[in-house]
Amino acid sequence: MTDTLAVTDGRVLTPEFDVIEADVLIDADAGEILEIGPGLAGDADGTLDATDSLVMPGLVNAHGHATMTLLRGYADDKTLEDWLQEDIWPAEAALTPEDVGVGTRLAAVELIRSGTTAFADMYFHVGEVVEAVREAGVRARVGHGVVTVGKDAEAARDDFAESLAVAEEYDGAADGRVRTAVMPHAPHTVGTEFFEEFVPKAREAGIPLHFHLNETETYLDEIDAEAGVRPTEYADDLGLLAEDTWVAHGVHLDAAEIETLAERGTAVAHCPASNMKLASGMAPVQELLDAGVTVALGTDGAASNNDLDLFDEIRDAAMIGKLAADDAAAVDAETAVRVATEGGARALGFDSGRIEAGANADLAVVDLDAAHLTPEHDLVSHLAYAARGSDVRHTVCDGEVLMRDGEVLAFDEADVRERAQEHAEALVERAEE
Amino acid sequence: MTDTLAVTDGRVLTPEFDVIEADVLIDADAGEILEIGPGLAGDADGTLDATDSLVMPGLVNAHGHATMTLLRGYADDKTLEDWLQEDIWPAEAALTPEDVGVGTRLAAVELIRSGTTAFADMYFHVGEVVEAVREAGVRARVGHGVVTVGKDAEAARDDFAESLAVAEEYDGAADGRVRTAVMPHAPHTVGTEFFEEFVPKAREAGIPLHFHLNETETYLDEIDAEAGVRPTEYADDLGLLAEDTWVAHGVHLDAAEIETLAERGTAVAHCPASNMKLASGMAPVQELLDAGVTVALGTDGAASNNDLDLFDEIRDAAMIGKLAADDAAAVDAETAVRVATEGGARALGFDSGRIEAGANADLAVVDLDAAHLTPEHDLVSHLAYAARGSDVRHTVCDGEVLMRDGEVLAFDEADVRERAQEHAEALVERAEE
Repeated sequence: MTDTLAVTDGRVLTPEFDVIEADVLIDADAGEILEIGPGLAGDADGTLDATDSLVMPGLVNAHGHATMTLLRGYADDKTLEDWLQEDIWPAEAALTPEDVGVGTRLAAVELIRSGTTAFADMYFHVGEVVEAVREAGVRARVGHGVVTVGKDAEAARDDFAESLAVAEEYDGAADGRVRTAVMPHAPHTVGTEFFEEFVPKAREAGIPLHFHLNETETYLDEIDAEAGVRPTEYADDLGLLAEDTWVAHGVHLDAAEIETLAERGTAVAHCPASNMKLASGMAPVQELLDAGVTVALGTDGAASNNDLDLFDEIRDAAMIGKLAADDAAAVDAETAVRVATEGGARALGFDSGRIEAGANADLAVVDLDAAHLTPEHDLVSHLAYAARGSDVRHTVCDGEVLMRDGEVLAFDEADVRERAQEHAEALVERAEE
Repeated sequence: MTDTLAVTDGRVLTPEFDVIEADVLIDADAGEILEIGPGLAGDADGTLDATDSLVMPGLVNAHGHATMTLLRGYADDKTLEDWLQEDIWPAEAALTPEDVGVGTRLAAVELIRSGTTAFADMYFHVGEVVEAVREAGVRARVGHGVVTVGKDAEAARDDFAESLAVAEEYDGAADGRVRTAVMPHAPHTVGTEFFEEFVPKAREAGIPLHFHLNETETYLDEIDAEAGVRPTEYADDLGLLAEDTWVAHGVHLDAAEIETLAERGTAVAHCPASNMKLASGMAPVQELLDAGVTVALGTDGAASNNDLDLFDEIRDAAMIGKLAADDAAAVDAETAVRVATEGGARALGFDSGRIEAGANADLAVVDLDAAHLTPEHDLVSHLAYAARGSDVRHTVCDGEVLMRDGEVLAFDEADVRERAQEHAEALVERAEE
């Protein structure tokens, strides 16, 4: 006897990007979509009303640092390098494991509220992240971020070893909603010898890699000074690029690098808001797509965004995708929504990102009953250019309802927010001591 | 005996951009702020609760075409020229006066919902716009848009004459909430002889001018081919630039043009979303500010945005302001909020845009009780980077409460939306005949 959930009386965004009137029947135990069609409500054990609403795939946030919600608005309007060195790294040095749990819960509330059902997280104290993900009910690809510059060889080696150990330990946690990756921060912040030692081990264990690539011009210069090549070539020579690898940013990529990413099947998590806010530049998104690279979207940490509403990134991707290509037809509405859903799912290796029988039951139900979504010439255009996270009524992940009519079910939201405020204040106090 | 309203128990954003705990006492009859301070609720005739909320100046949308809400999502992902010629102009040719009334009411609902209390409108059937503004309770600077290219001399002359007549007719309507301007579309779409005839008349009547300036490179080329100069010089030679003139866009401006705008005291309504969506480019906002030019923000029409939530423009201005300047410190959070409030008020000539005794009682009350606005390190950062229109609880204009706890009071919102849907469908049908 299966426990079923029917999402009823809505319109459904199909994998072909048609909008049809249909119910969606979900196997809540297996966390899978069973069927899409009319009149499926009758036999379901539970229902979720989608009248005047659009049922779409849950959004996938393919690059971020969830705990950094605690630093939202702590330091703004600085270059990436100054911001990291003067504000963020000192604050992160003062973080406790409990801070990570609290910050990740705050992030989870925000993600669920804005229709995001899966996210990637590069951070530390990963056990705390996993516990928050378990409680939240969302899906995540998590990992321990490795930085070896500025560390002695033993500490550096331990850091990379921890990333591998953590990835092995937590893969499959929370009923399989947690998957892992080994996460060296970036080619220029991790020593060559550590890549050489650990990347083959990760590959052998079947664990994906995730790292920052070509986020700023400064980063290119550092690799160029060290190795005399572009970072993508450097990463490829070290065996870092593969189909189960996805990189973050990819702002400054030349044609050869784009080609290499396409050949290796490596996805790019585009983070338009973060790239704008830190003045890093505009990623060549249309060129990446034209070359066949899988593009996903990420918010990056809340400190460089400053929220985790992926509807902003959908709009930003379309907007600066056009500026970067000098072409108003680039990164059109459908493309922007696709990269936020199926692109993200592909990058993170989840069978989500589309409303289809057999896929994970990860979905968002968007309330269309709003002035800013009137009139209805084109609902996909509305998703890309006019909708925002606050339009999401219901969020479902793995067949479970995580938010119903604007109420987050997994957490006591007021308690999460209160604890976040306390931890953020204490953290800043410690960092500024 | 004065009718007073107290906005109580909130925090208030002062003109100095400090955040203080205070009540705001308003003279509802005069539409003015009387006093800011503690304990003002006692004697007021009415109250508006601002607990857990931030009282900020109402936003000012300094460039747009309100009726174009009817075309939201009708045509996307095209260059400005193709989009205008293939989609927008044919649709606008089929517009009825009633469409303008309906579309402007839809726009007003959206503006009020997202905390905007004043807007500029360049369109036609201005009487319908004025009637919608009267009903909505907002403040507006409206005008009839003039285009003479493609018209015979008599029709062209009539068009400009209408813009002047309309501006004289409606100035001061709706208890002074409606002000007007003469609105020639752009230097390249209006013949020199008509500027020569009518601009002195507008000046003589004390009526401001508003027009598009340097929106795309194509437009520069047209003026260059005709007059051999940059458009700002061309406009200046015709006497178009003055302190009560404000221009829209100003995307492609060289240093000499920026200097000219500064010298003439002409404000620029920056429209970042529209400029990105149409791939027009990135305006040099920080350079304009550094030169002393008053910068305001505009959404432009909803068809190139696709919403009228000015919180998006605040964020966009900060974001692409940094990219355009190649400096993450450019267009910081405070600057972005200032241009959306006091900058807009200055551009449109309203004594609004700041919470101060004596200023117009135009304000927005933002609900801070939200996950995406937690923790509270810096509320101005939140306004710029994390808040969105849907966080606005109450909107007050001219001392009247236009929205209370998310309910728009001036209109039956469901009726406005239903009529907008009907009119939009009929409009598109006529345009495509």
